[in-house]
Amino acid sequence: MRLKAKFLGLEAGGKSIVVLNKEDADDLGVPPLGRVKISFRGREVTAIINTTILLIHVGVIGLYEEVRRALNVEEGDLLEVEIAPSPTSVHFIRNKLRGRKLTYEEVLEIVRDTVKGNLSEIEIAAFVTALHSFGLDLDEATSLSIAMVETGNILKLDRHPILDKHSIGGVPGDKTTLLVVPIIAACGLTIPKTSSRAITSAAGTADRAEALMPVSLNIEEMREVVEKTNGCIVWGGSLYLAPADDIFVRVEHPLSIDPLLLPSIMSKKKAVGAELLVIDIPCGRGTKVKTIGEADLLAKDFIELGRRLGIKVQCAVTYGEQPVGYAVGPALEAREALSVLMGEAEVPDLADKATDIAGILLNMSGMRNGKELAVEALRSGRAERKLREIIEAQGGDPTVNPSDIRVGDRRFTFRSERSGYVLWIDNSYLVEVARLAGAPKDKGAGVLLHKKIGDRVKEGEPLFTVYAEKAAKLQRALSMLEERTFMGTGKRMEMLIHEVKERPVTKRAFMLER
Amino acid sequence: MRLKAKFLGLEAGGKSIVVLNKEDADDLGVPPLGRVKISFRGREVTAIINTTILLIHVGVIGLYEEVRRALNVEEGDLLEVEIAPSPTSVHFIRNKLRGRKLTYEEVLEIVRDTVKGNLSEIEIAAFVTALHSFGLDLDEATSLSIAMVETGNILKLDRHPILDKHSIGGVPGDKTTLLVVPIIAACGLTIPKTSSRAITSAAGTADRAEALMPVSLNIEEMREVVEKTNGCIVWGGSLYLAPADDIFVRVEHPLSIDPLLLPSIMSKKKAVGAELLVIDIPCGRGTKVKTIGEADLLAKDFIELGRRLGIKVQCAVTYGEQPVGYAVGPALEAREALSVLMGEAEVPDLADKATDIAGILLNMSGMRNGKELAVEALRSGRAERKLREIIEAQGGDPTVNPSDIRVGDRRFTFRSERSGYVLWIDNSYLVEVARLAGAPKDKGAGVLLHKKIGDRVKEGEPLFTVYAEKAAKLQRALSMLEERTFMGTGKRMEMLIHEVKERPVTKRAFMLER
Repeated sequence: MRLKAKFLGLEAGGKSIVVLNKEDADDLGVPPLGRVKISFRGREVTAIINTTILLIHVGVIGLYEEVRRALNVEEGDLLEVEIAPSPTSVHFIRNKLRGRKLTYEEVLEIVRDTVKGNLSEIEIAAFVTALHSFGLDLDEATSLSIAMVETGNILKLDRHPILDKHSIGGVPGDKTTLLVVPIIAACGLTIPKTSSRAITSAAGTADRAEALMPVSLNIEEMREVVEKTNGCIVWGGSLYLAPADDIFVRVEHPLSIDPLLLPSIMSKKKAVGAELLVIDIPCGRGTKVKTIGEADLLAKDFIELGRRLGIKVQCAVTYGEQPVGYAVGPALEAREALSVLMGEAEVPDLADKATDIAGILLNMSGMRNGKELAVEALRSGRAERKLREIIEAQGGDPTVNPSDIRVGDRRFTFRSERSGYVLWIDNSYLVEVARLAGAPKDKGAGVLLHKKIGDRVKEGEPLFTVYAEKAAKLQRALSMLEERTFMGTGKRMEMLIHEVKERPVTKRAFMLER
Repeated sequence: MRLKAKFLGLEAGGKSIVVLNKEDADDLGVPPLGRVKISFRGREVTAIINTTILLIHVGVIGLYEEVRRALNVEEGDLLEVEIAPSPTSVHFIRNKLRGRKLTYEEVLEIVRDTVKGNLSEIEIAAFVTALHSFGLDLDEATSLSIAMVETGNILKLDRHPILDKHSIGGVPGDKTTLLVVPIIAACGLTIPKTSSRAITSAAGTADRAEALMPVSLNIEEMREVVEKTNGCIVWGGSLYLAPADDIFVRVEHPLSIDPLLLPSIMSKKKAVGAELLVIDIPCGRGTKVKTIGEADLLAKDFIELGRRLGIKVQCAVTYGEQPVGYAVGPALEAREALSVLMGEAEVPDLADKATDIAGILLNMSGMRNGKELAVEALRSGRAERKLREIIEAQGGDPTVNPSDIRVGDRRFTFRSERSGYVLWIDNSYLVEVARLAGAPKDKGAGVLLHKKIGDRVKEGEPLFTVYAEKAAKLQRALSMLEERTFMGTGKRMEMLIHEVKERPVTKRAFMLER
């Protein structure tokens, strides 16, 4: 069937989609969400069809941008359109839906078609849901990790060992990476760190780092920075490392499921050539992993998956029941990290966590007294100088000072209504407040704590300050805080946690971050 | 945030979708596929957002038709847009994803949001996939059935009992309903039959009936026909009975899964007020249900679900290894059914199956010798006269003759290359050929068998004829048949079925039809 091209001007997020009039679709015999092969001057694209009775007339084919580009057509060109079968990978997805274990070849086919945009939203959603429902064993996790590496870019460095660290996330204010990378690099070891932006949190490491320097590098620029400075802190999103994961996460997030957690993390590490890796598993109420037992089980899987991928993994189960440090929000956190590196601020938990993780990495690479070496690199100012080298190499201002980092000038400080102690901090509610104030999109927005759990507080003393760049957003955050606070104070722990009067409905607050 | 309305002219299949520039979406803090509340002059709509960096500029909001209509805006109107939470039903879907059993209230909420267009494709796909993976027990099947009835139209008739029949499908050429309805109605009982169009088959009952009369009636017209004639054969798609099912099936079909089979069928029966129901379960190779044991298990579930919904159900497990009758394709089948009703053609298996099922229904309504009554209604011509009454009431020509039904004039007859017997017919391949020839969209296209399994055949005798309305489509079907046939002949059954030389890959041919 010959149809006339019409441009829709819409993007489908990498997928190849065309819109046909229902008449034409029926005539071709294509079922809803079926596929057609479109040919034009020797070029061919297989696209998923949407049908309409309104916008597209009989004889016309509406093209999303992806298809327009792939075929290189002009509006009005006549395209040859015929029915196309589902790709083989759809059969493999159906097998997984029946509970069958997938082979590497099958997984590779699914991942390849995902990256190429050959699978519909429904097919990808079904695949991810089936992985969640039936689970995936370590063989499948290994297959997925390798397939995701194979279908993306790979960073090649001529040095060994390559170190890396990763946190599974879930703790607000965790700017540990901003310290670990310069500490490791200052000790002469290589750490090509990629990070994500926030999805549901108030700041991802890429957001934090961006307050100090450009982070949207391509893979060649990243390689140059690492070769020059031993380290880098760049945004993973522009590198096309394990790109399938970015597509899967678009399904996982609205469903709050995360079956690909392990392959997702490990494939990105493998893609930068990591050989020694520390995985940080924050643990406790308000994090993803509630108990140490759960954390240990997850650690076991990371270690075993690493073994299969040729990556030596150690895990650090860390305390996650309150933010790391005092600052939550991209610019506030960048400020805090820089201050600690410069020795201008005392933030014991942040310094401790960063040197613990750096210490484990140093020990893994064969040094002794890793923790002491890490502390020394931090204390001596060597880590600070290294960070400035990295900032410069990534195109930022190496002379930046904490006060140069712009934070929001709309502020409100909450003060304690009584004397006593800080008893608890509700992590996820704190994040919600920071996001209402504008984080992570408004880099200067967030929350600065003045007290943390266990701290003594007097009536009228400041507990925390909310920062925003826009008055309306500050107002929005404050309205939430009028209802209830995320920081609890009192004389002593109260023994009654919660009364249950009827069947409780639990709303799981999920923080997906990789 | 105030955004200027722009019309996209696209339909989203009932869903409320808007397109924002990525900048604005980030500014609102809406995650990908998150939701916004849009207000305009007292009207409010919650819509799922897609983002773009191309088509929609900052400050503009692109509206799908559904949203445009609901808000009743003009292009350029300023709309108030704010972030909206996920509907509660998304939490319930997440619970099902974790394997939790759903209560009636939760199911109702999910079904209601599905019908209202409040759920994204991904959320619906995840729900259906989770139902498939974890299964649904009879409590959940009952809840789904009731919820699907509650959220759609209901047919109210002032008479009892209401009879109905349904086939789970999978056998080509099954025009049984075209005989059962007039037989039952001729016996003075009420049978308000709704049918579906083909999805993956060569003809649905609605397609077959449409070759005889209009079938796209609304519910009021349907009621009038039934009150006048005791029966009807109308397309279910325009009646808005259990409309959630039509949305779920859009996800089930591309995935070839069918977890909602029972609630889907039973809700549509409940919605027309059925009290006595026969479910036909075609059984055997090439159908959905391969063995009698499987058929009995499915029958048990239908009977129990019926009991919970107040419908008395009996099941008929029927032979399904070859087409019913000789004709496959809408017009060819309508012709065959009409000829049998008129006593002009002998099609023993069709007449037998129709009178068996009608007989069970008559027995269920308290008559004795149901089978004999059914045979008598058919033989006497009373069923034929009743069908003509129904045709007239639905707006068709009551004097129609088989030869008036137009079938395709592009034809090709395949002849036997040897003498012997017809040993097998490959149902799904036959359907594929009929579809390539144009069925069901081209009503006159299809396949007419001249021989069936067990029939003696001489060299050169016709085996079957392929019908098409268009030469190109006939050619397409013939090319397929050049590769291999769907009808096997030979001297005797060959004992070696199939050699297995390497790990076999099975491709399950699924026929979803309700």
